[in-house]
Parts: sequence; C-alpha cells; structure tokens
Amino acid sequence: MHNADKNRLNDEKKYVVIVDRLQKRGVTQLDIAEITLGLQTKYLPFLSIDVCLDHVKRVLMKREVQNAILTGLELDILAEQGKLSEPLSTIILSDYGLYGIDEILALSIVNVYGSIGSTNFGFVDKTKPGIIGRLDDKTDGKKTCNTFLDDIVGAIAAAAASSIAHKYADVDSKPETF
Amino acid sequence: MHNADKNRLNDEKKYVVIVDRLQKRGVTQLDIAEITLGLQTKYLPFLSIDVCLDHVKRVLMKREVQNAILTGLELDILAEQGKLSEPLSTIILSDYGLYGIDEILALSIVNVYGSIGSTNFGFVDKTKPGIIGRLDDKTDGKKTCNTFLDDIVGAIAAAAASSIAHKYADVDSKPETF
Amino acid sequence: MHNADKNRLNDEKKYVVIVDRLQKRGVTQLDIAEITLGLQTKYLPFLSIDVCLDHVKRVLMKREVQNAILTGLELDILAEQGKLSEPLSTIILSDYGLYGIDEILALSIVNVYGSIGSTNFGFVDKTKPGIIGRLDDKTDGKKTCNTFLDDIVGAIAAAAASSIAHKYADVDSKPETF
Amino acid sequence: MHNADKNRLNDEKKYVVIVDRLQKRGVTQLDIAEITLGLQTKYLPFLSIDVCLDHVKRVLMKREVQNAILTGLELDILAEQGKLSEPLSTIILSDYGLYGIDEILALSIVNVYGSIGSTNFGFVDKTKPGIIGRLDDKTDGKKTCNTFLDDIVGAIAAAAASSIAHKYADVDSKPETF
Repeated sequence: MHNADKNRLNDEKKYVVIVDRLQKRGVTQLDIAEITLGLQTKYLPFLSIDVCLDHVKRVLMKREVQNAILTGLELDILAEQGKLSEPLSTIILSDYGLYGIDEILALSIVNVYGSIGSTNFGFVDKTKPGIIGRLDDKTDGKKTCNTFLDDIVGAIAAAAASSIAHKYADVDSKPETF
Repeated sequence: MHNADKNRLNDEKKYVVIVDRLQKRGVTQLDIAEITLGLQTKYLPFLSIDVCLDHVKRVLMKREVQNAILTGLELDILAEQGKLSEPLSTIILSDYGLYGIDEILALSIVNVYGSIGSTNFGFVDKTKPGIIGRLDDKTDGKKTCNTFLDDIVGAIAAAAASSIAHKYADVDSKPETF
Repeated sequence: MHNADKNRLNDEKKYVVIVDRLQKRGVTQLDIAEITLGLQTKYLPFLSIDVCLDHVKRVLMKREVQNAILTGLELDILAEQGKLSEPLSTIILSDYGLYGIDEILALSIVNVYGSIGSTNFGFVDKTKPGIIGRLDDKTDGKKTCNTFLDDIVGAIAAAAASSIAHKYADVDSKPETF
Repeated sequence: MHNADKNRLNDEKKYVVIVDRLQKRGVTQLDIAEITLGLQTKYLPFLSIDVCLDHVKRVLMKREVQNAILTGLELDILAEQGKLSEPLSTIILSDYGLYGIDEILALSIVNVYGSIGSTNFGFVDKTKPGIIGRLDDKTDGKKTCNTFLDDIVGAIAAAAASSIAHKYADVDSKPETF
C-alpha cells in the first residue's frame, strides 16, 4: 500500500476516535453543524444542514485539527480525574478566563481555514449558541470540566463555516438547496 | 541621547501621526474606548471610560500595532485614490469578504495581548458596535474605502479590552471606580 | 456555469497574474521549488524538483495566499514608485527590521499549512537560501524594494515544504522518485 | 491589598514554580539566555549574557507564557508516566513531526513579542543550538519525553531575543556593554 494512502487511512481512523470521544463528552457532529448553519445562513439562505454536516466532517479529517482536539479533550478529562498538578489543575478546573491555552488550541483549528475563521470563532465564543451554551452551563452540579471542549466545538463550527464560505464564495441567491 | 530612548520617542511621534490620521478617517480615541467599555463592562461593572481611553492609548503606543495601522490605512487611501493595480483595487474597494488580509492585520494587533484578544475581535467584527457600524455603512454615497479601517478599529478596541482584562484579572467587585 | 466553479476559475486567473508578477520581480516558480527541495531533501532523500514545483503551484492556487502575495508585492512597488506616505515609505524602503508586517503576511501564507510551516519559514528567513539571498542583496545599486518579496518567497517555499511533509508523512525510504 | 497587585504576585509565584520545574527537566535560565545571546549577538555585538538573562526572566513573568509552559511540561510528564490515552500517548512519546501542538504552544509564547519572534523561533527549532540539541538527543537511553520542552525552550529564547531587539532597536555600535 502506498504510504501516503496509509497515512490518509490513519486520519480516517483518528476521525472515528474523535467522533466517538466528542459523543462521550456530549457533543454530536449534528450539534456542531447546527452552529455552523446559524453562522452561515445569513450569507447563504439556502444552505442546508447536510452541507454543514459534510463540512464539519471535512474539518474533523484534518490532521492538525485532530491533534488539537485529542490534546484538549485529554486535558479536560485529566483535570476531572485529578491527574493534573497544581497550579494547572485549578486553572483548568475553574475555566480561568486568562488561561488562554484553550483559545490557542481553538485558533489552531480555525487558522487552517484562513483569517476569516477567527472572526467566526470569536463571535461563537462570546455568544455561545446551541450546544456551546449547554456545555458552558455549570449549574447542573455535575463535576464535568469542559474548559477545552467548548472552545474546540466553537472552533470546529467556525472552521466548517469558513470552509463553506470559501467554497460558495460570491453565491448570492441560489434557487436549489446546496 | 540614549538610542533606546530615541526609539521610544519615535513610537511617541508615530502615536501622534496615527491619532491624527484616524481622526481624518472619522475615528477618535474616544470612539474606540466606547467599544472597549462595551466589551468589558459585563466583567468589570465599575470600569470607567477614562480607564478604557488610557488602555486604547497604550495599545496605540505599541510598535507593531502602529505599523499595522499605518499599513492598513495607507491601503484604504490608495484604493480610494485609484492608485492600486488590479485585481487588488477591486478586491479592496468592494471589501470582498474572502480577502482576509484586513483580518490578518487586525489579528496582528490583538495577538500582542494574547489569545483572549482574538475572541473580543471576532465578536466586535460580527456585531459592529458604535463607530464600526457607522464606518461599515455604505449607504451615505461617499466614495470612502474603510476595508482596513473597520477591522483596525475593532482590533484596537479588542486589544485595549484584553489589556484591561489582564490588568484587573480576578477583580470581582470593587467599590471605587477604576 | 456553477458559481463555485466560476470562483475556482477566478483563483486560476489570479494564479496566472501572480506567476507573471513574481517573474517581473525576478522570481520563478522553479526558484521557489529549489528552496522547498533544500528544506525537505533531508527528510525525503528521493524527493524530486518536479514534486516541489507541483506543491509550489498548489500553494499559489490558494485564495488567502494569493491575496497576501498581491498585497505585499503592491506595497513593494508603491514604495519604489514613491507613492507611499511617510513614515511608511521610509520604513518599507529601508526594510526596517522591526516593521513586522512583511512577516505577518508571510505567516498568513504558511499558517494555511499548520504550525510546521512557521518553523520552515523562520529557518529560511534567517538563512536566506537561493533566490532569497539574491533578493536581499542590496549591493547592486538598483532601486529595487523587496521588503515584502523576500518574505513572501520564503513563505511560499516553506508552505510547499509543509504541504509535501503532510502528504508524504511517515515515508522513510522510498525506492522510486516521487 | 490591591487586586491587580495580588495578581502580579501570582505571576511572580508562578515564575518561581516554572523556573523550578524547568530546572527539574534539565534547563536553567542561563541555558536559555545563552541561546538568546547566540541569536542577537550578530546584531548587537556588545550584548552581554546578563541582559539576555534579564529578558529571559521578563518573558517568564508573562501570564500567557507561563500558562503555555505549565501546559506543555505537564503533557511531557504525563506522557512519560503513561497517563495519556491513545493515540495521543504514542504521538507525544515519539515526538511525531506532524503533531504540531508543541509548535502551537511555542508560537503562542513568541507571538506576545510580535511577528519577529516567529522567525527566531523557526531558526532555533531547525538548528537546535545549545541545550535544545541536548534535549533532543535521544541516544542516552533515558525514558525522557521532551516533545514540548525543546520547543518551549526555543520559544522562550526567541521571545527574549525579540524583547531585546524591540528595546535596542537602531543601536548600531555602542561602546559600553549593555
């Protein structure tokens, strides 16, 4: 087998691992696609959720995106399990606003789609639509740490929105759903 | 005179040039400080406009910020004057959404204040508060090109908000105005 | 014609414009591919110049890369023609080391290929191999301004090297030329 | 006590923790300052190691720098201790070249000093001077994981070099040591 193909296969395998892990943390690809649709529907009124889902999947197939997700989720879980040393443990468990490394990983995801991804991410990070707001809601009493997860979900949604924007650039009004 | 001091003086001189140029394009430091106040008042309810103005000034004293502003404003003005070649001229005059270099310069401004600046910038870029909305309003029939200016103003406001956040971190409720 | 296709055509047209403009500034795609080969030959000893050329072309087809190149080259030319205002004119004509906006545009090119691009760019920017060293050589008495061009060429070469690294990851020793 | 002061104190405490942790991983501030000196001595021939040490310390006092270091070192140590899940564990233990998150954290450190920091970091990351080469040397048979550490050390050295460049800009030849 050609090595480059083997490698692409690895990306596919990591994709399966990541989708599974996001689901265990309470996030489906559809949850993310809905945020993407909310971001782009203003510019592309005929955009369908299926196209958004397709672009979310494309984003999740990118190697650097996968590595950022695996690293961020691992830190959330290790924080929950009390396996991080201080002062990092307290910083991550409290989702300290000036920690910044959660945003750094998120920006590494959106940067793959150029600078317009950053704007979408910033908006989502402030307005917390859909699943992001639910992840961020700490009132449920559960001992869940989503410090990285909420930024990662926002970044995937923003990256998928940018991927769509790049593909359907200059489309003003299209009669058929795409 | 010590060379390092001479250099700081240069930054001061460039600050004067930049404040003047922003004003000629219709933007005062107070306009920017108001956006900063809007961004941070949620976290720091006693924050005053004077503190915001002070941090806007600090941002405008940074060398890389100054260079980004000088370069962006120059491109807006050259576009207006018809001095850019094609296809760049059309791209900038039409504020083409996928141009991306306006956001690149803006992000270089906010990055100086760490990753939290990017989030503030993205939010401002989407919601267009205050002077940014007025700059973006093309219905006045004037032949003004603000492709770089609106992003630059948003980035300065976001950078000042981040500068304040870093300074007053962990301040929950302070009785006196600061 | 489908709008997305029309748009891809635009990227192809811009590709032709950019290759032509780089040539007028003294840089061919082959010059850039040779730097890419120098960067990657250590990891991929059987890498050919043709594969490098192919990846340089792919980089030059990316929209954000094209916009960064068009903007940077325009600023070099306007500086040469004396069309920039002060203090920007002197800063760009003297290739002032702390200007930073040339590197900002270059980094926007390499960032499209993830963080490994930045490392390659930094190395090339310091060591100035091949055409970059010749562009940087100011002793020929010509009134040429290459402040943006040398960084742009380094960034394209570094981005192509990263593109190759991503494609041929994990390839250790391959008997055939690829 | 004033809250902003309390906060700065926190940064000082974190500085002590970080210096101690770097030392346990085999890196002193002097090791880093020597790389900084090597980077800047070409431009500032009278630069002393004491000035470099002072700027290394300043870099280590920055909050986002501290958070990047704490996070990277934690991942190295957790990888060594076998506490990371797959596939992340193998990726980090093998210092996989396309992982990219080590460079992402490193770039977040240098970005605080503007774009010129990236160039210095890229050069150091490729040439591996001083302590970086020794960290990267896997032939000693020890089960040490320095995937993040070598990039972090390079980034601190590059950031300190940029901090010096910004301070002593335009200094050509100075008779006294500074």
